[in-house]
Amino acid sequence: MKLVIIGGVAAGMSAALEAKRVNPDLAVTVYEASHYVNLSACGLPYVISGALPDPAVLASRGAQDFKAQGINVFTRHLVTDVDYPARQVRVKDLDSGRSFSDSFDQLLLATGAKVIRPELEGGELPGLYGLRNLEDAQQIQAALARGVTRAVIVGGGYIGLMMADALTKRGLKVTVVEQLPRLLGNVDTEVAALALQELERNGVEVALQTEVTGLAGNGRVERVITSRGELPADFVLLTTGVRPNADLAAGAGVDINPLGAVRVNDRMETNLPGIFAAGDLVEVHHLVSHRPAYIPLGSTATKQGRVAGINIAGGEGRFAGVVGTTISKTFDLAVGLTGLSELEAAALDIPSASATIADFDHAPYYPDRRPLTVKLVFGPGDGRLLGAQIAGYGIAVKRIDVIATLLHRGGTIEDLSRLDLAYAAAFSPVLDPLILAANRALSSNRRSR
Amino acid sequence: MKLVIIGGVAAGMSAALEAKRVNPDLAVTVYEASHYVNLSACGLPYVISGALPDPAVLASRGAQDFKAQGINVFTRHLVTDVDYPARQVRVKDLDSGRSFSDSFDQLLLATGAKVIRPELEGGELPGLYGLRNLEDAQQIQAALARGVTRAVIVGGGYIGLMMADALTKRGLKVTVVEQLPRLLGNVDTEVAALALQELERNGVEVALQTEVTGLAGNGRVERVITSRGELPADFVLLTTGVRPNADLAAGAGVDINPLGAVRVNDRMETNLPGIFAAGDLVEVHHLVSHRPAYIPLGSTATKQGRVAGINIAGGEGRFAGVVGTTISKTFDLAVGLTGLSELEAAALDIPSASATIADFDHAPYYPDRRPLTVKLVFGPGDGRLLGAQIAGYGIAVKRIDVIATLLHRGGTIEDLSRLDLAYAAAFSPVLDPLILAANRALSSNRRSR
Repeated sequence: MKLVIIGGVAAGMSAALEAKRVNPDLAVTVYEASHYVNLSACGLPYVISGALPDPAVLASRGAQDFKAQGINVFTRHLVTDVDYPARQVRVKDLDSGRSFSDSFDQLLLATGAKVIRPELEGGELPGLYGLRNLEDAQQIQAALARGVTRAVIVGGGYIGLMMADALTKRGLKVTVVEQLPRLLGNVDTEVAALALQELERNGVEVALQTEVTGLAGNGRVERVITSRGELPADFVLLTTGVRPNADLAAGAGVDINPLGAVRVNDRMETNLPGIFAAGDLVEVHHLVSHRPAYIPLGSTATKQGRVAGINIAGGEGRFAGVVGTTISKTFDLAVGLTGLSELEAAALDIPSASATIADFDHAPYYPDRRPLTVKLVFGPGDGRLLGAQIAGYGIAVKRIDVIATLLHRGGTIEDLSRLDLAYAAAFSPVLDPLILAANRALSSNRRSR
Repeated sequence: MKLVIIGGVAAGMSAALEAKRVNPDLAVTVYEASHYVNLSACGLPYVISGALPDPAVLASRGAQDFKAQGINVFTRHLVTDVDYPARQVRVKDLDSGRSFSDSFDQLLLATGAKVIRPELEGGELPGLYGLRNLEDAQQIQAALARGVTRAVIVGGGYIGLMMADALTKRGLKVTVVEQLPRLLGNVDTEVAALALQELERNGVEVALQTEVTGLAGNGRVERVITSRGELPADFVLLTTGVRPNADLAAGAGVDINPLGAVRVNDRMETNLPGIFAAGDLVEVHHLVSHRPAYIPLGSTATKQGRVAGINIAGGEGRFAGVVGTTISKTFDLAVGLTGLSELEAAALDIPSASATIADFDHAPYYPDRRPLTVKLVFGPGDGRLLGAQIAGYGIAVKRIDVIATLLHRGGTIEDLSRLDLAYAAAFSPVLDPLILAANRALSSNRRSR
């Protein structure tokens, strides 16, 4: 039995390792188009900021390490076609230019996502960048080395905000331009406003409800044209999001959903027997909205790859879905989101109420406490938790995981208020901010009935 | 209607506030024997260590603040007797020495816990201390000011370990003496060993399986006599635990369990109609062992006080029980525990298996990652989670709350492995250590079937 994996990042490599672990006799070949396998792309902003002087740490396990575990890894090899009836892939060696065919019994599509590049007038001008892989990061580093000074980041999602932080730390004057009337996509306005404050406190300019329509300049980018006028810029970064890199999958006859993502079941199987898909390429089942969603994340990709690997090797694995948990950090502020925001609930016609508290991450008398804001979103009346958002400083925000756990298990605000959460002065107020928020939600829900 | 509350710490004061919130017309009187109300006793070790130069921050809301909210607070007033049939309490003003009677319609017993003082030969010698309230802390401060240099801490539970840290920071040479073959009580040996290492790394000596039998000295403590020889000491601190301060309750005819704790239902009612009890005085229902337990904690007391206050004021509150979550910190190491350890499961004849991983608190490439050890305890076969222990550095250990949440909701190791936990390089490896531990547990559980 031979498994071919297309794409050697989070989903692909965790599938390879897991398949080999479950069935050491399985032949496993991985084709990866870039120079690196198992790249931790989430770390790229830290390469730009200078926090990681050596970008090689992002691909700490190289092709050789995987080969030593009996996995045939080929970097700089692009799969250009999948012939499903013949069980063959067509592969191009990007260094030699030579193409060849390879056969498979089972195939894992793990081609990930690609940067959305909006149509921009002047988009061909040098000075426009994306950030998806280490090669992109190296191009940005080269631009910084040439001494660019004014950056415009197109897109105020969490990658845009991480990059605003990184570029500010490299001495650039940064402006973030966002179409929506708020930052951070689906995060509710009053929580996203804390990120806005954090950016402004650190000298970043933010233009909300502003659309970038084009770039202008003499031979290279000098200005960004927006719906609200021009911004000077010698460096423009697109962080308007990614979409599934699904052309190969579509060509093979794999089902694609209206979002452009590959449809899979909870075993990570596509509609074509023997073809699996995992990672930033696939749709996920959202366990709160009960609808398909597209939420590409390295953590999800790693779990999905593991499940695909287990099933491919003859084991029994399931990936039930996500509750939409994300966390991000810009400068010192972290924002966590799980489940549905009020904005998302409204868009899905799900009735929701909310309660928000402004508290602190630990006891008042223990040194260095910092603000923590918790917003709970819940069903009016029944108090079923629909989601939460937390903004604060450092890993204190990771208590969003408690809400994520309750969302998986179908909990209410009352369940939350009763949790026996860990208390010590250094780590929490005597009532954890989550419980304080639950009590607030209970009171307001009681009053409104 | 008039409510009398005996004891003005966590349970008593949160009950007073909550009762007044639900029914502003209720007359509320609080009698507290010490000088302070609403004292955060958990912060006392930080007063000793010098981290909190002004101990007043531990009682940041004083009697005046509560009086401003219509709560009649009397400090230095000791309730000496409860006459239930007459609905009266006898109160002694400790400053004037005068006694008087007061009547109640409803009574909340919130008298907390008291330090267990083992019978020690020479126990009357000056130089022996306990730590339960601010007055104790002031006595210890006075001893430190007199220039004591060698401390013996009797008891290696979490308060003993916090105090080993505090006294070391004040320049004392510290020895911790513990009867059990491990530190931290119910924490399993291999996890408690990490605390042992942390103490030794910081110059604290630890004598395990050692019993303190007496004190000796010429007019004050100079030596501690143990089952393994003598230890020089001019300062001895008892941290051998606390027991319910239930004499008043017993005298009133309230049901007391074999552990000495007041029995209450989930509304915090005792067997006597109109008498409630909450806080370090009462037994709790352990939601994993399904047995009564005694786990005095400020966080639990605050929640119980709130429930008692709501019910007393005519509302509807329930305190369902605890899953035994604790977290403590000694020097830089934090240890979290929830549910049952293997030791506890064995003592309860509950079959258990375990899986332990040694991982890190965040992504390998993000600066300053630190080790994190996770031990899961689960039912062999069905994989039902029974508990977890986490040891590591800082608030990363608070992810124990995720397991606590699953314990409340009856989860398995498979449920844990599927959780959509927050991932960002600064806050977690791409697979959260909890999920890595769950995957390890799943593998070992599969192999053993």
